[in-house]
Amino acid sequence: MSQDKILQLDPIVHAPVRLAILSILITVENAHFTFLKESTKTTDGNLNTHLTKLEQSGYIRIKKTFQGKKPLTLCSITKKGEKAFHLYLEQLDQIVRSQKNKT
Amino acid sequence: MSQDKILQLDPIVHAPVRLAILSILITVENAHFTFLKESTKTTDGNLNTHLTKLEQSGYIRIKKTFQGKKPLTLCSITKKGEKAFHLYLEQLDQIVRSQKNKT
Repeated sequence: MSQDKILQLDPIVHAPVRLAILSILITVENAHFTFLKESTKTTDGNLNTHLTKLEQSGYIRIKKTFQGKKPLTLCSITKKGEKAFHLYLEQLDQIVRSQKNKT
Repeated sequence: MSQDKILQLDPIVHAPVRLAILSILITVENAHFTFLKESTKTTDGNLNTHLTKLEQSGYIRIKKTFQGKKPLTLCSITKKGEKAFHLYLEQLDQIVRSQKNKT
């Protein structure tokens, strides 16, 4: 049943800002904090919260380094994150198709 | 860009319990509170919160009547709700397809 599929969607991936972050990281080796911030149109604090949640779930890796004296935060997706992202897309696709057939 | 589309998703529809509610109401004339509660596997309080949010957004109508002495809450989707639901599905479909093409 479509409702069950909806309720089973991974809440870590489902939040729009996190979904946007993963949809970027899936296509690149890594991305800077500032690039993710611009792409997701969010604040430092909000982005940090979402990145931490993704890191704690094992979906991304965060590497903090320096570029000269400037701190540099690099994010990359893990194998686990890739798997979760693809599974989520697959489930979304099934939900959309089952809804389109119904209505 | 796919990130923009993700960030533009209607937050009223995007919450899984509300999406599940709308996906039921789109297929029927109306549904009882108890049926929605069973289908969304949630509590009375939580369901009430989500139904109120959908009603306040003009996406559903809630009618409270009685069946004998038993209160009966009937929910139905509005034209505005139908439109929002279909738009959401369309956007979701575009996101899934654009992601699948990228990865």
